[in-house]
Amino acid sequence: MIVTDTLVSFFLETRQHTEDICKPLEIEDYVVQPIVDVSPPKWHLGHTSWFFEEFILKPYKLNYKLFHDDFAFVFNSYYENVGKRVVRNDRGNLSRPGVAKVYDYRHYVTSEMKDFLTELHNTDKGISEKIKDLLLIGIHHEKQHQELLTTDIKYILGNNPLLPKYNDNFTENPIQNFEREWIDMKEGIYEIGHNNPDAFCYDNELGQHKVYLHDYKISNKLVTNAEYLTFINAGGYEDFNLWHAEGLDWVRTNNIKAPMYWHNIEGKWHQYTLQGLREIDLDAPLSHISYYEAFAYTQWKSCRLPTEFEWEAAQNNFEWGSRWEWTESAYLPYPNYTKAPGAIGEYNGKFMVNQKVLRGGSVATSKNHTRPTYRNFFQTNLRWQFTGLRLAK
Amino acid sequence: MIVTDTLVSFFLETRQHTEDICKPLEIEDYVVQPIVDVSPPKWHLGHTSWFFEEFILKPYKLNYKLFHDDFAFVFNSYYENVGKRVVRNDRGNLSRPGVAKVYDYRHYVTSEMKDFLTELHNTDKGISEKIKDLLLIGIHHEKQHQELLTTDIKYILGNNPLLPKYNDNFTENPIQNFEREWIDMKEGIYEIGHNNPDAFCYDNELGQHKVYLHDYKISNKLVTNAEYLTFINAGGYEDFNLWHAEGLDWVRTNNIKAPMYWHNIEGKWHQYTLQGLREIDLDAPLSHISYYEAFAYTQWKSCRLPTEFEWEAAQNNFEWGSRWEWTESAYLPYPNYTKAPGAIGEYNGKFMVNQKVLRGGSVATSKNHTRPTYRNFFQTNLRWQFTGLRLAK
Amino acid sequence: MIVTDTLVSFFLETRQHTEDICKPLEIEDYVVQPIVDVSPPKWHLGHTSWFFEEFILKPYKLNYKLFHDDFAFVFNSYYENVGKRVVRNDRGNLSRPGVAKVYDYRHYVTSEMKDFLTELHNTDKGISEKIKDLLLIGIHHEKQHQELLTTDIKYILGNNPLLPKYNDNFTENPIQNFEREWIDMKEGIYEIGHNNPDAFCYDNELGQHKVYLHDYKISNKLVTNAEYLTFINAGGYEDFNLWHAEGLDWVRTNNIKAPMYWHNIEGKWHQYTLQGLREIDLDAPLSHISYYEAFAYTQWKSCRLPTEFEWEAAQNNFEWGSRWEWTESAYLPYPNYTKAPGAIGEYNGKFMVNQKVLRGGSVATSKNHTRPTYRNFFQTNLRWQFTGLRLAK
Amino acid sequence: MIVTDTLVSFFLETRQHTEDICKPLEIEDYVVQPIVDVSPPKWHLGHTSWFFEEFILKPYKLNYKLFHDDFAFVFNSYYENVGKRVVRNDRGNLSRPGVAKVYDYRHYVTSEMKDFLTELHNTDKGISEKIKDLLLIGIHHEKQHQELLTTDIKYILGNNPLLPKYNDNFTENPIQNFEREWIDMKEGIYEIGHNNPDAFCYDNELGQHKVYLHDYKISNKLVTNAEYLTFINAGGYEDFNLWHAEGLDWVRTNNIKAPMYWHNIEGKWHQYTLQGLREIDLDAPLSHISYYEAFAYTQWKSCRLPTEFEWEAAQNNFEWGSRWEWTESAYLPYPNYTKAPGAIGEYNGKFMVNQKVLRGGSVATSKNHTRPTYRNFFQTNLRWQFTGLRLAK
Repeated sequence: MIVTDTLVSFFLETRQHTEDICKPLEIEDYVVQPIVDVSPPKWHLGHTSWFFEEFILKPYKLNYKLFHDDFAFVFNSYYENVGKRVVRNDRGNLSRPGVAKVYDYRHYVTSEMKDFLTELHNTDKGISEKIKDLLLIGIHHEKQHQELLTTDIKYILGNNPLLPKYNDNFTENPIQNFEREWIDMKEGIYEIGHNNPDAFCYDNELGQHKVYLHDYKISNKLVTNAEYLTFINAGGYEDFNLWHAEGLDWVRTNNIKAPMYWHNIEGKWHQYTLQGLREIDLDAPLSHISYYEAFAYTQWKSCRLPTEFEWEAAQNNFEWGSRWEWTESAYLPYPNYTKAPGAIGEYNGKFMVNQKVLRGGSVATSKNHTRPTYRNFFQTNLRWQFTGLRLAK
Repeated sequence: MIVTDTLVSFFLETRQHTEDICKPLEIEDYVVQPIVDVSPPKWHLGHTSWFFEEFILKPYKLNYKLFHDDFAFVFNSYYENVGKRVVRNDRGNLSRPGVAKVYDYRHYVTSEMKDFLTELHNTDKGISEKIKDLLLIGIHHEKQHQELLTTDIKYILGNNPLLPKYNDNFTENPIQNFEREWIDMKEGIYEIGHNNPDAFCYDNELGQHKVYLHDYKISNKLVTNAEYLTFINAGGYEDFNLWHAEGLDWVRTNNIKAPMYWHNIEGKWHQYTLQGLREIDLDAPLSHISYYEAFAYTQWKSCRLPTEFEWEAAQNNFEWGSRWEWTESAYLPYPNYTKAPGAIGEYNGKFMVNQKVLRGGSVATSKNHTRPTYRNFFQTNLRWQFTGLRLAK
Repeated sequence: MIVTDTLVSFFLETRQHTEDICKPLEIEDYVVQPIVDVSPPKWHLGHTSWFFEEFILKPYKLNYKLFHDDFAFVFNSYYENVGKRVVRNDRGNLSRPGVAKVYDYRHYVTSEMKDFLTELHNTDKGISEKIKDLLLIGIHHEKQHQELLTTDIKYILGNNPLLPKYNDNFTENPIQNFEREWIDMKEGIYEIGHNNPDAFCYDNELGQHKVYLHDYKISNKLVTNAEYLTFINAGGYEDFNLWHAEGLDWVRTNNIKAPMYWHNIEGKWHQYTLQGLREIDLDAPLSHISYYEAFAYTQWKSCRLPTEFEWEAAQNNFEWGSRWEWTESAYLPYPNYTKAPGAIGEYNGKFMVNQKVLRGGSVATSKNHTRPTYRNFFQTNLRWQFTGLRLAK
Repeated sequence: MIVTDTLVSFFLETRQHTEDICKPLEIEDYVVQPIVDVSPPKWHLGHTSWFFEEFILKPYKLNYKLFHDDFAFVFNSYYENVGKRVVRNDRGNLSRPGVAKVYDYRHYVTSEMKDFLTELHNTDKGISEKIKDLLLIGIHHEKQHQELLTTDIKYILGNNPLLPKYNDNFTENPIQNFEREWIDMKEGIYEIGHNNPDAFCYDNELGQHKVYLHDYKISNKLVTNAEYLTFINAGGYEDFNLWHAEGLDWVRTNNIKAPMYWHNIEGKWHQYTLQGLREIDLDAPLSHISYYEAFAYTQWKSCRLPTEFEWEAAQNNFEWGSRWEWTESAYLPYPNYTKAPGAIGEYNGKFMVNQKVLRGGSVATSKNHTRPTYRNFFQTNLRWQFTGLRLAK
């Protein structure tokens, strides 16, 4: 059981960490939305605050006064149950509320939450399970947005013609100084899903259940930039036999020739990183690829992607956490999956179609946010997350 | 083992049946392509002929003379390995080759194939396994197009403001005169996939393998028009909690209010059928719905769709074959799936992303074409096939 | 004054000529609509019949029985005053009514019209001025569609990969065996517009009025293919200084490199004509260019296009009638232009924005259809008419 | 003749005024681009500076050092002759260079220009005619952008759900306290265009020439909000007979029901102004309408719009300058119009197609920027400028 003190600290640290991520930004960086998937940083700051206001303060805090009547409209993301919201691709058109005002909003919500939790803590009953659950979801929701903040900032700066750097300390490329090996996994029944009732998890991990796996092998090491470069140089993007029909359309329509953030400058491949533009780090794990590219690479290697079940069954045999790893699994409900009622139930279930599961975590994932049963998911064409791949066969 | 005589008859009967389907058409009906998914009937006639020409006659028949040099360009569908092709949504812009010419082409190919097979049959070795395999694929390919022909004709006539009927004999709505019951299925390991080496199947059914299923219940009866009408009348299309986010976008963008071919005429629901416009048959199995609608209906019933594995494991406990049944399963490769080399390998594998599996078969499916392991697949928004659903929980 | 007998003959000849244009077609050619601007030939046949039915037979013929209740819906083009209509880009999706049925409709309308006119003729009063006016508009309307029929047929056949010819007798390229000269026109006031009350004209030609023209020169000869080829070879399509900003976008977006129907086959320019594909006729007047291309060519020659007023003032000094000639004039109302009330008023006025005037006539224009004051008009990007240009300075 | 001292002051005042317009902005307001036609304020600040750098400092100032190598790429608008530019609808995705940096750029350019002009002034020859011409174009170019800055700011704030005001002093709605009258204008020849060689004008006003006008009447007063409200209440937006076909499409596709910035709040019409949201000022001249709306209103009044020639011939008989007045004239070159060579020639000529001329000026037009011969021009659907109309007949 998490004790209340720890919970309040956890909340406050999380709130602080979100702001720390934004420290290197100029005010202008908070405002823009270059593509629909990338939200303006100030929107993330407001939205994560709105979440606590909407789901905890408004319904549970006595005499809670909304910071601003129109902010729910501005900062709701996709919760149909909670009323109208700014259309997602209009977020970048809003210059107001300004950054300072959004920080006021954040601080107001943080402070109100702190007061509210402290008061409850000092009552006889303490914080109820209901509130604890909502608080934990709110904290983990904010941790998810911390990762999105990082990747959205990378997109905003990395698509600016001046290619400004974020800061000098963010290390995207961890060292993988070990040999590539195939891990042999044995046929049989495996338990999949989250089963620790004392630890937080999302509803999409629940319903621990049995899955039958056949013999398979899985690599102990992520595919590297050097390996992917060989694929590019061998004409991988032009060889239609390696691609899904849909992937090929995507490659041709968008004229894709390399991972996102790769620039060929006078014959030499560079990549934009949060530390600025630099030559490709050949030993680093490949990043910023779509599922289509991950799949095509496996075809070229006469291998395949692991399913999310194979990944979970094997994960304690290899290092993971620097890249979100595309799996072959579609994002689907586990047996006995049930959606929570109301707005909180919109968290995961309504996205369970035409997306792929990614497992692991990335260099942008917040501390303590991922775990072996964590199921991330994205559409097959998206690349602005730190996405990579691991071979199976 | 299929003996050669039977094979030749099978081929000739298939070729004939395709033409029989077109008997009720006027010449003009052969030409149009109202949406990208619906091909002009004359294109189906040509394309199924081109398949035999391209994959059997051209490579294997000595001194085979192409019927026309440009027809490969006109009638190739999506085989990247076989060169350029008319873009799919331009098929309806081609008035030439005319219908008579396309029939000439068909008859030429049929006759050349018959000669070729007969000659081989009369040699000592008979027809080689290689040719038999290609022939069977070609026949089953044509049977798939027979179903598409039927549904495409329905679309062409059913979206014409005059609503002409196809013919009086085509019965879309079989009688389901039995009670609804839940079939109880027991937890355990089930064998999934095709394992009869003597019978034809597609590559996507192969790799028979073990799947672990938990206890589940599956309905013995398809959802009926009457039941779905209750969902409509209860405001199912407006209740956002029932839909995937993507499904809701689809409903709103396309202003969907009922299954395809349903018309509300002065307060009374009608449906366009191949026998013309008539009042809704309440007892008939629901048809022409998207996956999104199938899913929303299950949510409203607090049930779910079966997975394709659950369906296959239970299928001998219920009647099936009048509707393609949407399953919850994404269309993915089975363990050990391998793609055939070259153009034939493009048949299935390259579509294994962002589609859903449908099981069963429909009133438009050609005789002997479906089986318990058959995996049909479509994008989640498509409705012009005879698609329905069966509840599980 | 046109006497009634002549009028009836004029009507019947016009009706017949429309059908003559379609003689070389196969049934399939009547059905398709490859782009929104090109209507299926059977639609033209029906629409020109509907015009007489809607504006004459229905309101004026006693006890007239509509041929079919739904045909007004199918064959209305753009008349908002006359109710709903099939959306323009859906015309090519309609296989029914079939071609035979449309001819039945034509013949029914022709016959009813003939009876109606003959009866009126035999009364004491004869055909009223009101009916005569409507009849003449109907006939000239049909002549306009005769030209569209020809150009739409050219588009349908000329964009088919088999490039079938229309017939051997249609001469697109008249001989221009005379020297190029500049005609000097003197500054002063000119009378512009139609002023013969006994002759038919459209409302957009009326309101004869004075226009002040400054000294100008106009070429006696249309620009030829040979001359335009020099422009192409000099890089005219790539030199942005020659183009309007909007024209440059059009060139780049559509990857335009030559007039419509030009094909560069192994380094040699060919053009598709109604007589089939043949090498470019260098001496022939240039055809099938957009206004943007016409303009860019004038810039390259340090000249300009004439205004429609300059063209009309000078027209009896040169030969014209083989190409519709783009002018610099926007399509605008003449002073004192007044729109007829009701549907007939929709004929011209509602198109007087963002289009350019073309003057002259073309090899596809029906006999007696054009005249010096005739104002044709199209959007600046359209090329499927026989459009050319004449220089001024 | 303008003496040099005055020129330098004129330059410096203009530079200062641009910055004054931005005074009320928050930093975030400088960054966004809600629609393609509206540029971010910081872009205007940079672009008007780039203009002086590119066309004067770079070619003419000895040893001039560019402020930043990449700024030409960022701040070029549409000059093809000067190299690549940021695509227009990407301007709002650029958070860098930040606002402070853009002001540094401005001040650097202003200071370098001041030094350059002062040095020239102190030489024997003084500032050459060539430089004077470029300087004047640069100043008037900046004045045009001052008006765009104002209207773009209005769009950015007026489309924000919080509807923040710009400032309290900006008066959009001047008083028109005089009676409506028709001014009678006599038939005859009028001189049109600019003919004072000592005063600045754009190339599109040159080529003074004769135009023949017929008798006409023109209103001494702009159409008011009250009058337009009557049109709205009479169902003007629904009556298809009043609209161009293209205008009707625009109304239906965009669901237009009132001028831009009008909000019907609980049955009462309000308008967003730079002073914030307020009730409609009934006596104020109508503003923020498209050409399509202006035209439809004239049809409803059985009147018409004046041509630009009629407007210019009559303009000293009425007050003007609070609204850009749509005319019926298409934006076309005057007789003898010649484009300047190189990039400066791109200023006007390449837009002379499919746009309409507006005459007069508006409350947002900078002092001394407009004149009776000034030809403004926009596409027919645009409404974010202060556009209104005056009736003619």
